Amino acid sequence: MIDFTTILEDIEPSENEQKNIQNLSDKLIDIINTNAHDKGFSARAVLLGSVAKNTWISSDNKEDVDIDIFIKFPLSTSLEDLKAQGLELAYYCIETVGGTYEERYASHPYLTGVIDGYPVDLVPCYDIQQSKELKSAVDRTILHTEYVRKNLKTNQEKEVRLLKRFMKMVGTYGSEFKVGGFSGYLCELLIIHYGSFLEVLQKASSEWKPGYQIDLMNFGTADLFSDSLVVVDPTDKNRNVAAALTLQKMAEFRVAAANFLENPKKAYFYPKEISYDLQAIKVEFEKRDTHSIILTFPAPEIPDDALHPQIRKTENSLVKILETGDFSVLGSDCWTSEGNDKENQKVLILLEMNTWHLPHYRKHFGPRVWDDDNAKRFTQKHPASWIEDDQWVTLTRREHQDAESLIKGTLTKRGIRNLRVGKHLKKKILNNYELLNVSDLLIPEESDEKLLKFMYCYLHKYELLTR
Amino acid sequence: MIDFTTILEDIEPSENEQKNIQNLSDKLIDIINTNAHDKGFSARAVLLGSVAKNTWISSDNKEDVDIDIFIKFPLSTSLEDLKAQGLELAYYCIETVGGTYEERYASHPYLTGVIDGYPVDLVPCYDIQQSKELKSAVDRTILHTEYVRKNLKTNQEKEVRLLKRFMKMVGTYGSEFKVGGFSGYLCELLIIHYGSFLEVLQKASSEWKPGYQIDLMNFGTADLFSDSLVVVDPTDKNRNVAAALTLQKMAEFRVAAANFLENPKKAYFYPKEISYDLQAIKVEFEKRDTHSIILTFPAPEIPDDALHPQIRKTENSLVKILETGDFSVLGSDCWTSEGNDKENQKVLILLEMNTWHLPHYRKHFGPRVWDDDNAKRFTQKHPASWIEDDQWVTLTRREHQDAESLIKGTLTKRGIRNLRVGKHLKKKILNNYELLNVSDLLIPEESDEKLLKFMYCYLHKYELLTR
Repeated sequence: MIDFTTILEDIEPSENEQKNIQNLSDKLIDIINTNAHDKGFSARAVLLGSVAKNTWISSDNKEDVDIDIFIKFPLSTSLEDLKAQGLELAYYCIETVGGTYEERYASHPYLTGVIDGYPVDLVPCYDIQQSKELKSAVDRTILHTEYVRKNLKTNQEKEVRLLKRFMKMVGTYGSEFKVGGFSGYLCELLIIHYGSFLEVLQKASSEWKPGYQIDLMNFGTADLFSDSLVVVDPTDKNRNVAAALTLQKMAEFRVAAANFLENPKKAYFYPKEISYDLQAIKVEFEKRDTHSIILTFPAPEIPDDALHPQIRKTENSLVKILETGDFSVLGSDCWTSEGNDKENQKVLILLEMNTWHLPHYRKHFGPRVWDDDNAKRFTQKHPASWIEDDQWVTLTRREHQDAESLIKGTLTKRGIRNLRVGKHLKKKILNNYELLNVSDLLIPEESDEKLLKFMYCYLHKYELLTR
Repeated sequence: MIDFTTILEDIEPSENEQKNIQNLSDKLIDIINTNAHDKGFSARAVLLGSVAKNTWISSDNKEDVDIDIFIKFPLSTSLEDLKAQGLELAYYCIETVGGTYEERYASHPYLTGVIDGYPVDLVPCYDIQQSKELKSAVDRTILHTEYVRKNLKTNQEKEVRLLKRFMKMVGTYGSEFKVGGFSGYLCELLIIHYGSFLEVLQKASSEWKPGYQIDLMNFGTADLFSDSLVVVDPTDKNRNVAAALTLQKMAEFRVAAANFLENPKKAYFYPKEISYDLQAIKVEFEKRDTHSIILTFPAPEIPDDALHPQIRKTENSLVKILETGDFSVLGSDCWTSEGNDKENQKVLILLEMNTWHLPHYRKHFGPRVWDDDNAKRFTQKHPASWIEDDQWVTLTRREHQDAESLIKGTLTKRGIRNLRVGKHLKKKILNNYELLNVSDLLIPEESDEKLLKFMYCYLHKYELLTR
């Protein structure tokens, strides 16, 4: 096996880094608690998340480190007071230290900002002791942090870091919709359960199958869940920590784990160096001899976490509409430009067509001849029908002989009723969509590295899983 | 309801016709029996079939009337003697009256010939009393004739004639493989069961469903059969008289029956007058905007009843091969030129393609990632694979991008192993096939009325079922 020392040197925070984060957190907590006391609010701020659990990964880029400060209120507090007082304390705190910030919304509003270059979340919550007392989804973070602090041994913290880093580099880390991968908490539970990074990889690549169950507290409730992987939350027997993990990412992790174990390399812990060459990508698309249609439109101004499921839903619905129209879709994917500049954010749906032109007519199967009423209706509507076996069949003229034409027909006021489109997207699509081909999209002067990466990864889906 | 009198006048044999047939049969039987007596063979000739049952249909064309003379031998006769003596008597008979003839083979050899313009079959058989004694399939004819003569009332004979004629004119008559429709015996049993022509149509169009059962003798054995229509043979409880009836023809009859009852017309009992216009057929094929491929090759010199199942099998197998190769087949059919001139008989398989050109690559789904051994083999063979959900997928290059190319590839020594081709056809196809399009096939100067009819009927499958 490879020596993990040098990797850990890169991903474990230095003493200096630790101190900086700790000092910043302490300062913020102190400001909030003092202010709460002054105002007579019964609120108490605490540090939670990966920093509190000491499982965070060092990075040259402060942006990659999340400081999660939760402002706990007693269970007796009304939700109204919690929201009002919580936000007041959060605003005061972040303004006092001079950070940038904006209001976000999870189960209730919270502040997210940047202080001294670090992303900081200030989240009002209820001070619960057990899941039964849960009043809002964010409250769980208290229980999760506490469980990991109690059950993860100090020498296992580095194992979590290795696992998270490995996951990130092979593309399976992150439980947000955009990824559908493993959450940080899930990684921690896997280390607690299996003991070490290598043991997680061993077991994942030999024992895991869809429906695999892990039940740390022996709650016996794993059968309640029908997800790809079931990890019963040790703090709530009715919750599956792996619920957001897609079968896709679970399978990818298994394959990456097996690849690593078969031929361990340090490279699995570092970004793969790929040069995204515009011309090469274009040539590769051409060689596939398919027909790629790229639908683009401006993103609505909603958070990425809300945006992504809507885009994916739209993509899937478009694929279904195309396939129902007898067009065969070889592959599809979606992408958005970075979300910081919401006003100019673009959405892109790639549809790679295997069949994109069809004849005028298609065979349309009707009722069986024994089904009198329906047969009568069908043959009256289609006088040129005939019988195949015992079923009425007719030729009907296609409205759309080309995939593009079907898409255009769908993206009209009338046609869009057939599309399962995210509600925020509907207007944006209708008013501003464009259909491009690969050459239109990949223009040398305007080439965007992230877009190239998306197009490259679409063509090389396996790329990240091996080194 | 229409008046059937004039129809019956056309289809019931005149006294004169009856006498001619009777005289001819008597003469043939007499020759055989005298000759048998002279030679010391214990054989006795009898008239069977529709002439004996008086359910045959008068025709201006003598060719349409079948005279079936069976030469019965005692059960104690060896098969060898039956064959030798039976054929000897048959040859002697037909040579004595100066008919043309040839030897055919059903379960054993028999003679088929033409005497005074009438087709005559001279069939050696065993003189059985019940189905248990059956030694060869042809022996049944004795039992069938006897049953119908005993159970069909004289005034029902005209009902059988109406039913047979109707069936013929809507295209559902004939149990030979080429048609897959109703046999004469089946028509007779339906009249015995339901009483009259109109009652058969009533019941067929209201009660019949796939799996419908008729058990005249209440044998209780109908559940043994899983055919579309089950009519237990009154002379053999283990036989379904309708076994050769396809779901297609059963459904067509139901529809034609309903059409007739809704709007009864004498025209249902006469050939539909259709002009088969070569140019119009060509234009219609063009308008469909599909791509029709016509495979032709010389027919092997085997009887039509053996030839047709082999052609159909080949057609179905070709369709399956095309669809497995992602080419969508809108429709297919097969045809042979008339079988009298065996040496120049042509076979034709029509394949109307809805997709006939495909991109180079196709998506090829492999094993699931959890299936270690197979996954390993797959990814070693296809290094550029990726994962979709938890399944390995790769792009493979198609060997054939065009339907024609796939057919040509299949019709090679190597490729033909994938084709379920009738054994007599194999050599003929390999050595002499041609691929034509509709324009190649339909050449004004060489236009064959029967071929035009085939092509027209392919386009107008419902045509015959209504008037």
